[in-house]
Amino acid sequence: MRFVRFGPSGQEKPGVLDAQGVIRDISSIVHDIDGRSLAAGLQNTLAETALETLPVVPETERLGPCIGNIRSFIGVGMNYADHALETGAAIPTEPVLFNKAPSCINGPNDDIIIPRQSRKTDWEVELAIVIGKRASYISSLDAPSVIAGYCICNDLSEREFQMERGGTWNKGKSCPTFGPLGPWFVTADEIKDTQKLDMWLDLNGERMQTGNTSTMIFTVPYIVSYISQFMILEPGDVITTGTPPGVGMGQKPQRFLKPGDKLTLGIEGLGSQSAKVIGAE
Amino acid sequence: MRFVRFGPSGQEKPGVLDAQGVIRDISSIVHDIDGRSLAAGLQNTLAETALETLPVVPETERLGPCIGNIRSFIGVGMNYADHALETGAAIPTEPVLFNKAPSCINGPNDDIIIPRQSRKTDWEVELAIVIGKRASYISSLDAPSVIAGYCICNDLSEREFQMERGGTWNKGKSCPTFGPLGPWFVTADEIKDTQKLDMWLDLNGERMQTGNTSTMIFTVPYIVSYISQFMILEPGDVITTGTPPGVGMGQKPQRFLKPGDKLTLGIEGLGSQSAKVIGAE
Repeated sequence: MRFVRFGPSGQEKPGVLDAQGVIRDISSIVHDIDGRSLAAGLQNTLAETALETLPVVPETERLGPCIGNIRSFIGVGMNYADHALETGAAIPTEPVLFNKAPSCINGPNDDIIIPRQSRKTDWEVELAIVIGKRASYISSLDAPSVIAGYCICNDLSEREFQMERGGTWNKGKSCPTFGPLGPWFVTADEIKDTQKLDMWLDLNGERMQTGNTSTMIFTVPYIVSYISQFMILEPGDVITTGTPPGVGMGQKPQRFLKPGDKLTLGIEGLGSQSAKVIGAE
Repeated sequence: MRFVRFGPSGQEKPGVLDAQGVIRDISSIVHDIDGRSLAAGLQNTLAETALETLPVVPETERLGPCIGNIRSFIGVGMNYADHALETGAAIPTEPVLFNKAPSCINGPNDDIIIPRQSRKTDWEVELAIVIGKRASYISSLDAPSVIAGYCICNDLSEREFQMERGGTWNKGKSCPTFGPLGPWFVTADEIKDTQKLDMWLDLNGERMQTGNTSTMIFTVPYIVSYISQFMILEPGDVITTGTPPGVGMGQKPQRFLKPGDKLTLGIEGLGSQSAKVIGAE
């Protein structure tokens, strides 16, 4: 199933796409698309419902981030062999983890704000994993059982804040609007093979990133298992799994976002995002 | 005022200390001590209430983490000049930030679990800041207006996971039970000078850490202002501000936690924690 959250920022309601791709309002059935409803078995909750009988949501409604009330938003860095190469970094021997603050999460088509003092705001189309069950010290073999589904994440990154300001990467990964998620939260059963998904990103209509999850260094189950050795993963946590080549930092000369730019990006089976870039107030 | 959360893990209720230090149940007045009640002005909510009329909470009740539903749990590394010296690190020129997963948060007297595969689990007594209002691009001068109060954090750290496993520090900072918070959330008006607080930590009754917040490199208002340049801080977010000298990594020879150890730690005006160390299952 494909779920969305629609309505004004901070007041989103849950919705589901019916067989025709029309968004139906499910706010009378579930309180939200979040850790609590995922842990309660969101899909089963709707199994008996004829979606076509539910209210239609107008196409003009804003889409919010497809998961609500996220607490841990974890990133994996340098997870595509071809992307590591373009940035000049060594291939990591184990996953590189960083954190994105929950306050950076944005709707898929909301404006992206270039932070104050920024000179190097960059894009990254990524496959994000949504956790559905608590996981601690889980094996790669068992990892699929705790994954509720997937969505697109644009892992926006300010390269100077990330790498030239001391300490960890978090400073360049958490700026306001740096975490657009969606449009859809797609349940795991709809994705046949997480390691065979085409992905792309266009800047002002020009193709910048072309990739496929087949070039990931660490696979989706491995990543979930690995992180669970260090921390408990909880329902509603989101893990974004790294980006293929074509980021601005990898261009010659380097190229970064400026006000007025338009980013469109997508992943096979997960829909697409389209956002305008604006300057900070 | 001094607030607590009491009861079984995950089902904590809010409480407040009356003038005699007796815990009173305030669950009939506020839903929880968390971002939502802080943003709504927790202190004002209770201003008209005679605390002595509220139900007494038995002293035998478990204390939970003093803030509930935390989303961003941010750490500042190497923030005491004397601690940087003991670890052999250079004095940072700007705050080093890392992240602790919300799933690591523990009650102040709950058991601390040494993670599987751990050889270097270490202690760190720290002053933690609790955010009460949304803050973005705030100045140091205005930072106190967004701080709701303070509590003790034991910023437990697995040094091998933190520094020898690639990438950022997060891997060694987020293990289950690595974030005891409390016993009390103390409102900002009760702390006259955040840069003049004595702090200490004992391991099995032996004094290991003795410090004072006066040796912080970056002060409390500076830290809040600094972080808000990179990310939005939200009500209920917690920032732990670094540790004074005396961690296990700084001993000669180095010394780390083992099952059966007992940690007691405190900060002037914020109470004390007492926890037993156990091995992972």
